[in-house]
Amino acid sequence: MTDFSEWFHDILEEAEIIDSRYPVKGMHVWLPHGFQLRKEILNILKNILDRDHDEVLFPLLIPEGELAKEGIHVKGFEDEVYWITHGGLTELNQKLALRPTSETAMYPMFALWVRSHTDLPLKVYQTVNTFRYETKHTRPLIRVREITTFTEAHTVHSTRKEAEEQVEKAIEIYKEYFDMLALPYVITRRPVWDKFPGADYTMAFDTIMPDGKSLQIGTVHNLGQTFAKTFEITFENPEGDHKLGYQTCYGLSDRVIASVIGIHGDDSGLCLPPAVSPKQIVIVPIIFKKKGEEVLEKCRSLKSSLEKEGFRVHLDDRDIRAGKKYYEWEMRGVPLRIEIGPRDLEKNSAVLSRRDNGEKFSANLDNICDEVENTLKSITSHMKEKAWAKMNSNIRPVEGLEEARDEIENNKGVISFDWCGNEECGKEIEEKIRVDILGVQKEEDGGVCFHCSSKATCRALLARTY
Amino acid sequence: MTDFSEWFHDILEEAEIIDSRYPVKGMHVWLPHGFQLRKEILNILKNILDRDHDEVLFPLLIPEGELAKEGIHVKGFEDEVYWITHGGLTELNQKLALRPTSETAMYPMFALWVRSHTDLPLKVYQTVNTFRYETKHTRPLIRVREITTFTEAHTVHSTRKEAEEQVEKAIEIYKEYFDMLALPYVITRRPVWDKFPGADYTMAFDTIMPDGKSLQIGTVHNLGQTFAKTFEITFENPEGDHKLGYQTCYGLSDRVIASVIGIHGDDSGLCLPPAVSPKQIVIVPIIFKKKGEEVLEKCRSLKSSLEKEGFRVHLDDRDIRAGKKYYEWEMRGVPLRIEIGPRDLEKNSAVLSRRDNGEKFSANLDNICDEVENTLKSITSHMKEKAWAKMNSNIRPVEGLEEARDEIENNKGVISFDWCGNEECGKEIEEKIRVDILGVQKEEDGGVCFHCSSKATCRALLARTY
Repeated sequence: MTDFSEWFHDILEEAEIIDSRYPVKGMHVWLPHGFQLRKEILNILKNILDRDHDEVLFPLLIPEGELAKEGIHVKGFEDEVYWITHGGLTELNQKLALRPTSETAMYPMFALWVRSHTDLPLKVYQTVNTFRYETKHTRPLIRVREITTFTEAHTVHSTRKEAEEQVEKAIEIYKEYFDMLALPYVITRRPVWDKFPGADYTMAFDTIMPDGKSLQIGTVHNLGQTFAKTFEITFENPEGDHKLGYQTCYGLSDRVIASVIGIHGDDSGLCLPPAVSPKQIVIVPIIFKKKGEEVLEKCRSLKSSLEKEGFRVHLDDRDIRAGKKYYEWEMRGVPLRIEIGPRDLEKNSAVLSRRDNGEKFSANLDNICDEVENTLKSITSHMKEKAWAKMNSNIRPVEGLEEARDEIENNKGVISFDWCGNEECGKEIEEKIRVDILGVQKEEDGGVCFHCSSKATCRALLARTY
Repeated sequence: MTDFSEWFHDILEEAEIIDSRYPVKGMHVWLPHGFQLRKEILNILKNILDRDHDEVLFPLLIPEGELAKEGIHVKGFEDEVYWITHGGLTELNQKLALRPTSETAMYPMFALWVRSHTDLPLKVYQTVNTFRYETKHTRPLIRVREITTFTEAHTVHSTRKEAEEQVEKAIEIYKEYFDMLALPYVITRRPVWDKFPGADYTMAFDTIMPDGKSLQIGTVHNLGQTFAKTFEITFENPEGDHKLGYQTCYGLSDRVIASVIGIHGDDSGLCLPPAVSPKQIVIVPIIFKKKGEEVLEKCRSLKSSLEKEGFRVHLDDRDIRAGKKYYEWEMRGVPLRIEIGPRDLEKNSAVLSRRDNGEKFSANLDNICDEVENTLKSITSHMKEKAWAKMNSNIRPVEGLEEARDEIENNKGVISFDWCGNEECGKEIEEKIRVDILGVQKEEDGGVCFHCSSKATCRALLARTY
């Protein structure tokens, strides 16, 4: 993968994930294979969220009056909101915004729903499309004008402490999720100048793409009481007093799908984690003139045995060369291929071939379901280890600004440094080496700030970002 | 149900289906319970379509230039399209429409996808939100400005005959679907002045709501070559000639959910078909001081046995009166309630109570899974029979215009009549008795038109419509 950007563009087309020829900039079509991948990736998240969140669905359109209510928030989005001004040939009395995110759609309703402390905590989520009029260069799944797969959760609590705990819970949810996708990440507290508009603070997950740029793949915001004040979300506590609620929200987008594709892929194409691959196993019969029907019969019965165990299996019985099939399924990232030919039949065995490391080995058909299960597990953990090792090798500690600049330019990746945590100093760093401070990875004592040399308060990360 | 309109409004609120207080007219919030019902109703459709359609996802926004390309089509929608004119503070070079339906979003891409006869038939579908600036009185799920649950399928074929066959297949798909929802329907060929803008002809499913008005719940369009011409969807046939494709499209909306609620509901609230009820069975322990834990234990083990069989079960072990629980679950339409008390324990039995007809009976716990399965089947067929019988009793044949007017005014429902099939005559009928002709139910010879007295060519239906 010499040029990630080109590789990414090509694989989206070749593996039929996205068609980027749709005639509106930054908006794309999900093709059948891409849609299935998106569905599997989404299902895992929904299964986790469904444990203790209710799924809901809010309208797309937000009246200008509601969007404008929370001043800090609207300021963060006003440059990139799409506005509807006309219904048919009629000019609307009030402009309608396409949601850039749903705080201002949801919170007026939360104010109606939350009356008593017994209504709390309120935890809901929705998966929707959101819109941003991006002026920067757009790129499918990474920087788009229609985010098709935004999963946003919103919660209301009765105390500040509970809201803080919810932030931690959300971080645990996203860790569990990314682990199932074998995606590595760093978690930082975003600098104050880069937090979500209206939030008290923002925690963010970033991963490092193969070109060394960091990609924000998830954020968790503690909203404090800012929106509760604006939208009057109050509840009666057990003592009969009316109090303002505390809120959090957290979200993920199409970028998770971009990461699964980009982080695991290689020169042969996609390499998908078993949990999300639309087909986990492809069975390829090796057919010569003799025993053709017998081989096919065995493949069919193997398929049905594996499906009974819950695996997603495809039998590729097309009349084309096996090599062409291998090429196609490798490109589409199917984790495991099983080949059965006449000689395997004789030995009552099959050949298993792993997409992640190319390993091939023979397995007895009598206990093939167990063998497959173990192999898929091994693939997941190998993919995870490999991806983490690669990411960690791309995070380098530096002692000073010059070294940071060199590392960013020559070795790419993410830079770790001791920092005073001061806003003015942070903005100077960003300006001087033209990169973004991702945020604070951990608080710490001792050491000096690598830029202003005052006392360091934390370990922070900086990177070229998407 | 003396006033259906009021009943419908109240049940959406009481059963927590929709919150209609969202501050944009005709746009509503799906509440958790409603969202689950929507999901189950949608899943059944998707499972049917997935057999031989690929799921895709197209952008929401359509450039004005594409929407305007097909003249007849845009004329049908131009009064009700929402227009985006600004991105941020910037005026867009070209206005963008919120899709009212997706022909003009999809077909420019189809022109790129379809090259050869081997690419055909192409069959895709998507579930999306669509928008119509309705000027009539809006009503949740029935007449809305944001249709949140539009499932639209689009196909391309190489011959006219295949497209006609696809129309028949789509009708079979919708029949199968509505049967699982126990919804009765009439199928007609819409009059030419009421077909889909751009279609050769439109087949439609209507049901009759409790107030006697008909509700269109599904349409299937044969598009012929109209759009293929406009968007240049051509393919190379086996002889090497370039030919225009033939197209169909068919869709369903939130109205299917409205019908499930409206057709089956009664004065106690929702009554949901087992196939789509988010909870199919609710278990209510009858607890007195003695044997409380034993009863609960039995309820828990029953829940887990039923869940193993694939049923969606809820155990209501809240510490409130059983009567209040019954009321709530009846209102929410759960098809089957199972009660277990100390006396049932002694007899190793449970009491089953059906939501559809109120029947209560005792069943032995040893074979309760079979009993439950049979009872749910019986509930579905009873609901279906009842709904069909009611609908059929609301379709009345008449001999003349005066009789039709009387029937519509006094007995409501749908009127069946012999018709010449002539457009001029049809429009006169609609004007004179101020109802809509749904369409032609079947072609037939003999008889005379009930209005113009010329030779009848068909049996047609008319009704007050939603």
